[in-house]
Order: sequence, then structure tokens, then C-alpha cells
Amino acid sequence: MKINTHHLDDLALGSVFLATGGGGDPHIQQLITHQALKQYGPVDVIDPQSLPDDAYVVTVGCVGAPTVSLELLPSVDEAAQTLEAFEDHVGRTVDAVASFEIGGGNSMIPLVAAVGRGLPVIDGDGMGRALPEAQMMSYPIGGVRPTPAVAYDYAGNFATFSTDTTETYERHIRSFAMAAGGMVMTAEHPMTGRQLKDTVIPGTLSFTIELGRVIRENRGQADTLLEPLQEVFAPSIYGEVRQLFIGKVIDKATRIIGGYDIGEATIEAFDGEGPNLALNIKNEFLLAKLGGRVVASVPDLIVIVDYETSTPINAERLRYGHRVAVFAIGCPNFYRSEAALKVVAPRCFGFDIDYVPLEKLS
Amino acid sequence: MKINTHHLDDLALGSVFLATGGGGDPHIQQLITHQALKQYGPVDVIDPQSLPDDAYVVTVGCVGAPTVSLELLPSVDEAAQTLEAFEDHVGRTVDAVASFEIGGGNSMIPLVAAVGRGLPVIDGDGMGRALPEAQMMSYPIGGVRPTPAVAYDYAGNFATFSTDTTETYERHIRSFAMAAGGMVMTAEHPMTGRQLKDTVIPGTLSFTIELGRVIRENRGQADTLLEPLQEVFAPSIYGEVRQLFIGKVIDKATRIIGGYDIGEATIEAFDGEGPNLALNIKNEFLLAKLGGRVVASVPDLIVIVDYETSTPINAERLRYGHRVAVFAIGCPNFYRSEAALKVVAPRCFGFDIDYVPLEKLS
Repeated sequence: MKINTHHLDDLALGSVFLATGGGGDPHIQQLITHQALKQYGPVDVIDPQSLPDDAYVVTVGCVGAPTVSLELLPSVDEAAQTLEAFEDHVGRTVDAVASFEIGGGNSMIPLVAAVGRGLPVIDGDGMGRALPEAQMMSYPIGGVRPTPAVAYDYAGNFATFSTDTTETYERHIRSFAMAAGGMVMTAEHPMTGRQLKDTVIPGTLSFTIELGRVIRENRGQADTLLEPLQEVFAPSIYGEVRQLFIGKVIDKATRIIGGYDIGEATIEAFDGEGPNLALNIKNEFLLAKLGGRVVASVPDLIVIVDYETSTPINAERLRYGHRVAVFAIGCPNFYRSEAALKVVAPRCFGFDIDYVPLEKLS
Repeated sequence: MKINTHHLDDLALGSVFLATGGGGDPHIQQLITHQALKQYGPVDVIDPQSLPDDAYVVTVGCVGAPTVSLELLPSVDEAAQTLEAFEDHVGRTVDAVASFEIGGGNSMIPLVAAVGRGLPVIDGDGMGRALPEAQMMSYPIGGVRPTPAVAYDYAGNFATFSTDTTETYERHIRSFAMAAGGMVMTAEHPMTGRQLKDTVIPGTLSFTIELGRVIRENRGQADTLLEPLQEVFAPSIYGEVRQLFIGKVIDKATRIIGGYDIGEATIEAFDGEGPNLALNIKNEFLLAKLGGRVVASVPDLIVIVDYETSTPINAERLRYGHRVAVFAIGCPNFYRSEAALKVVAPRCFGFDIDYVPLEKLS
């Protein structure tokens, strides 16, 4: 398929849904992507399986505090410059660009990086959602090395990195982003076509546009949203969708700890009857408990939408008094493997519980 | 001249003196340098003026918290690997290696980097003492750009940087050092022979060995040290030496703020008579006041030696009850220029006073 400017509203809407509360507001990225596609035309989106095994693919996206992008406005050229700096650094050209995470603005940055060069973008990403750290991407979980990598800041300063593990790389790139004002653009986790096919969460770019379309066409009170969501998710890599709760936010408190937005929210039924739903937040919504009983947990997706309009709500925008519906969606199977759960299970976020897939929770 | 293993005790002793309380204990660097010189033979030390204008020189040294080097033991190979990584990065070989600062362990790292390759080391450095930040080096003050630069951590991870200003580079490299465990080895501020000749503080490597010899030969009570110090400093680029005070430390308090050791020390005369000497510390001894009157300030050198043995004392080793002698030495003329005082005057360290050269203070 090709992505053009007409797809961007749906892509943005779907990507905020899959960001599960994190990933930042993609509004600025959408504006930039719109301008780039208007200037250069549509982008080819290719099935990962169509890539030759020896193709060379790199991921491009933003690293840092999402809210900073509202101040350090990225330019249209930044993503392309980052890709060029990467090619200079490794001394070869890339054949396609892939996404870190489909949740939030990083769903769109690869389009901006690729379009001016006529490169295709991979239909897929490294998370199938948003997650806070680089080592939680499917690429490193599947053995892709993080570097060579390059990072560009808003002022045109850049750095390159060479490390063995994505855990170490995450520490280096995070500190560079902080020193550079809070956010940088990076090209990293380069891989062969074979590696990409083995590790990518497939089809998520086209799926997210479809998801956005469904949400858009079902705008209105969220208690009618479950069925259309189930229709779009059931045949996908995600599968299960559940409506966890409908009610009103009666408490929300987050604090910035170590660069993350960490805290809790509590939602009460409109009639005040029955147990409340409690949510744990670390950038994303990670754990949902109904009267103390776990009803969904990371790596499965927990999504909050505005009750009146069905618009997905970021964690930083959730407020006392907000009337909301809460959904849970099963994560792609990749994230239920032993290797993936080593880095994304609830314990990796400090919750002392084992992961139980959504379908097995009552 | 050539530096061999027999020079290292004097070089270490002189470099701690010129570190003016900062720069870290060079003991580990001395052991590594000893091993490298034993393995590869002596290092050629060359007069900067003998370099062709189109020669290519790079500075090599450690960046980070000095005390960390006692845990993250650097290996003999690290400095040479950093130099090699730099050459790979820029795609050319270097003709000579220069030092960031002659104060502390960075007086010796260039020897280790150069000796295995048979490269010469410049007789000179970028500070003539120790100072806490990269932009305080004479090279950037004289217009040398900080990058291309490479940084290596203890585990073999490395990064490269490209920035316009040394202030920005300082922020990037400092954050990388922190993320990499507290200390990294870098090759940075590459320059031509012409640039080096215009900006280096000349002769400081051979001078420091001579200074170390003088201190060693005059070990013993520090009240006999002034005359030999004056003899060695008078004909040098430093000039003036004064004995500011002899007494006992009656108060010392430093706190780590923003990666720096910041605080004060107070010294009282042995007989308790007369005003006390108060010292302000930010890694280095920066300001000395006698009864509230400034008697020496950065960029001039303030040095504390043990009263009984004349051994120079680092700020982190200064203790309550310590019997000490305090000396002040005029800084090289380079640091009295307008361009230099913009980045090293007392106000740059938060002291609300103008710089007055040591000789003009009564």
C-alpha cells in the first residue's frame, strides 16, 4: 500500500489508541508528516516478508520525553538528516526504514525519514504498542544489536554510539537526549531483512490506519465502541478485546521519577456502585485492578478513551472528573514468549505479580 | 627530551601540586603509565614549536569523576584504543598527542596513548593546572573546536560526538561519562600544528617533572619550601610564588553538587593568633581569603601541602586537624587574557569578585 496525507488522521488516532496512555501526543509529528508527504508524495509501505534476506533496514524515531517535542519543535528535515548521518556513519545506504513503536508519534517519523529519499517503510514496528525503554523492542529481544546508531539534536549536534547491549545503549542514548535538551532523533538497531522478518511485529502500520478509521467512524459514546473494536482486533495479531470499566476518574496522581511519569489513577462507576478500577501508570497504563483483582497487565494493552467521544486519552491528559471507558487488548504473541517476558513482564516495571494473558483472567 | 619510567614519580608529584586540589589522585595513572613505558620504552616529548603547521594533533585524557577511577580501573590499552578509535573515526592518523591538563592523572594519559605507537607527546597542556570543565582549556579558548571526538568506556562501548561549541560538548561528554559509570577516556579537540602552537600552555610537561624533583628534594617541613619553589617557578611561565599561610585545618565541608565537590575549608594559625585563611573549593581550591580579604583567586593557582612532609594535598583528602602550608602561584599569562577570563574568572565559578592578578594583591 501507499500512505498519503489522507491517511494521517486515522494513523494518528490509531497510534494514540495503541500508545496505551504513553507515546506522547503525535500532533506535531502529524503536522510534519503531512508537510513531508505533501512535498514528496506518498510513501510505499511494504510487507516485511517481501524484503530480501540481505536487505539493510534501520529504525528511525524520537527518543526522550514526549512533552519536550512541544517545545523543541522538530523540523521536516530532521528525520531525513538523521537517516543520512546514519548512512554516512556506516558507509552504506539502507533499503527500508522501520518504526520503533507504532504507539504515538514514532509511528510517523519513519515516513518522514523515508519519503524524501523514495525509500519504503516497513509495515510493522518493534512493539505493537508503546513501551518506555529501547530494550523492550522486539528487535533487541530477537537479538538485533542496538548500534551502530546515530543521534541528532534540535541544534544539529550529533553523536554516534557503539555498544553491545540495548540495555547499555538505552542508558547512553537517554542521557544524551537529556543533555541535548530532552529529546533527540535517532537511527539505530540496524538489521538485515532476515533479522527484520524474524523480529518485527508485522502489519501494524496498515492495521493502525484501519483501527483509526474504525474509531473515527464510531465516534460517540464509548459504550458502543466494544463491538467495532472486537471486529477490527479479532482477526489481527492482537485478538482479544475487553471492556474493563466505564466510569469517572476520582483520583489521579503521577510524579516524574527518573524521567518517567509514574503514578496511579482510580476510576469509579457512574452510579458509585461496585468496586473501583485502579490503574498503575509508568508513562503507559501498565496494570488494571478491579477491587484489588488484576484484570489486565502489561504487555497486554490497557487503553482509556473519553466516554463521550471515544477519543483515546494519554496518561498525562487524564484528569479528575474525566468520564472514561477502559479497554484491554491482548498483546501480539511475540510478547508472550519467554524471551520477551524477561524484559516486559509486570515485574520488569516493579509490580510483584506474574503475567497472566488477558484471555485467562476472569 | 624522553620520558621514561624514572621520571614518573616526579611527574606525579608535580602534577598533584599543579592540580591545585583537584584532578584526582594520579596513583592509578602512574601505575599504568609505568607499565606502558616499561613495555614500549620511553616517549619522545617534543617542543610544540617544532611541529609543522599542518601537523594533526589530538588531546587524549579522562573525563568524569576522578575518584571513580579507583573503582573503574583503566587498563593499559584503553588510552591507545581511544586514540585508534579516533583515527578510525576521522579517517587519518595523528602526528602527536597532547594533554588536557597537566594537573593530576591527565598529565600521564597522553604518554600511555602515544607510546605504543611511537608517537611523540607535546611538551605542554591545555590548562597549566587543573580546571573542572572542557571549555576552560586553552585550546577552545583559542578557537579549537571540540569535535570530532570519541569516548570509550571501561567496557569497550564507545561514542562519537559532533558539536560546534565546547560548552555543548562538555554537557554531552559529561552526561555520557555519567551514563557510562562515571568516567570515560576521550580523544577530542583535534587541531593543526598551527592551532596547537597558538593555544597550548607550553613546556608544562617537562616543567612538571622538574617541579616534582624540586618538591621531592625538599621534602620536610613546608616552611623551608618557599625558596626552592620560587627558584623553579620564577623563570617559568608561572612566575610569582607566595606562601599564603601556615596552620591547621579547623573546618572543612564539601558537598557533591552537580557532579562537583563544592565547599569550604578554614585554616587557623598554629598559635591561634591573627585572622584565619578561608578557602572556597569547587573540585579545585579557587579562592583564598585572609580575614575576609582576597589573597589569591582562580585562575591563579592555590596549592595546599602537608606541613610535615611538603606533599601536595588534594581537596578530597584535606581533613580537620591537618597541619598544612598554603601557597599561591601566578597563572600563565594566557589565562589573564580577556578571552580566557571570560570562562575562568572568579565569576565563572559563582564568586562575585573581579580577578586581580596575584602580584597586585597585597
